[in-house]
Amino acid sequence: MGEIGLYEAMSSCRAVRRHRSDEIPDEVVRRLVEAATWAPTGANNQPWRVIAVRDAELKQGLQELYLGPWNAYEQSARRAIDGLEGESRASQERGLAAATHLAHHMHRSPVIFVFCFNPERMAITDAEQPRPSVVGGGSVYPAVQNLLLAARGEGLGCVLTTLLCMKEPEVRALLEIPEPWATCAFVPVGVPASRGHGPLSRRPPEKMAFLDRWGAPLF
Amino acid sequence: MGEIGLYEAMSSCRAVRRHRSDEIPDEVVRRLVEAATWAPTGANNQPWRVIAVRDAELKQGLQELYLGPWNAYEQSARRAIDGLEGESRASQERGLAAATHLAHHMHRSPVIFVFCFNPERMAITDAEQPRPSVVGGGSVYPAVQNLLLAARGEGLGCVLTTLLCMKEPEVRALLEIPEPWATCAFVPVGVPASRGHGPLSRRPPEKMAFLDRWGAPLF
Repeated sequence: MGEIGLYEAMSSCRAVRRHRSDEIPDEVVRRLVEAATWAPTGANNQPWRVIAVRDAELKQGLQELYLGPWNAYEQSARRAIDGLEGESRASQERGLAAATHLAHHMHRSPVIFVFCFNPERMAITDAEQPRPSVVGGGSVYPAVQNLLLAARGEGLGCVLTTLLCMKEPEVRALLEIPEPWATCAFVPVGVPASRGHGPLSRRPPEKMAFLDRWGAPLF
Repeated sequence: MGEIGLYEAMSSCRAVRRHRSDEIPDEVVRRLVEAATWAPTGANNQPWRVIAVRDAELKQGLQELYLGPWNAYEQSARRAIDGLEGESRASQERGLAAATHLAHHMHRSPVIFVFCFNPERMAITDAEQPRPSVVGGGSVYPAVQNLLLAARGEGLGCVLTTLLCMKEPEVRALLEIPEPWATCAFVPVGVPASRGHGPLSRRPPEKMAFLDRWGAPLF
């Protein structure tokens, strides 16, 4: 069996939030981490590390911490959905049901990857702009995306979550993460328990891209 | 010819900073943008857009803006390199030479992709943490990484740069980007003019990953 094609992997790598608890072999975990290392980082500093959380108690600790911000998020998401109708509403309902399942069963996923970063090793070029900074993310989320794609390639389901950043002090204590390292992504991974990978729901390129200037159609 | 394999693309997708000025066909530009759309974003909001800058004057405008922050960066990089020796120094010298070439010739690349984002459409879960925020980047840099990988798959060289975020007001005026949209990545793309893709220089997975707790070896 040859490896999965690049476009095939990218075009079917959707959020998979229901996992079987089957263990993931060490060599697969290693391939996922290695894929993450291949991503670019500013000045090739690789200012991130990843903790593969496989211990049952620690995973449960993360799941319990997750419920606080999740319950607040779920309420606002529920209110937003109540304002929708038809297929749009049905689609959002399915997504919310899967995300609710994840919030209550994350500890059953065999591995939760916790990505950490060191802001002192980053050149954050938008730090002075009068709006939220994102550039530090340019040295961590390409690595996260590589791991998601590698998981897709291995037939594993996963999803990028960031809600636990709201509980960073507690996560830092639980996983013994030293200052100034901080958290930026939490990725539960496991064999898909239901539909798994498949077509994505996205805006078409025509609505996402411009030619030369804002607003000018690219195609 | 089948499409490139996922791991093959990821493991050879290094920064390529010297490009020929050959035009990139429209259908290839579209495939790169479509690959970006496949990336995950928070709540599937897709709070980014990309401008494919192909106009010669606009590309030159970006290149001229780049030189200011580049010259400052080059001086500090030069001082850092002067403290190194041997192969480490030689490797850094090669990187700096390529980056200097890019700074002076970026407008010769056939396309510069300028990624923009809307902070008002992002749930920035680390906004309250007492350290630089990165989570907004979680809804843009996976898309940028998909575009880089797609370019690799198409045989095109590219590199993720963020220095121009330091000139955001000027870039916004040049490309007519409306508030509150902001800039997060600048990706010149073109046919490689020299070595192109190949092996990466990265720390091994053993130095990037832990098991369960910070500091515990994963493998």
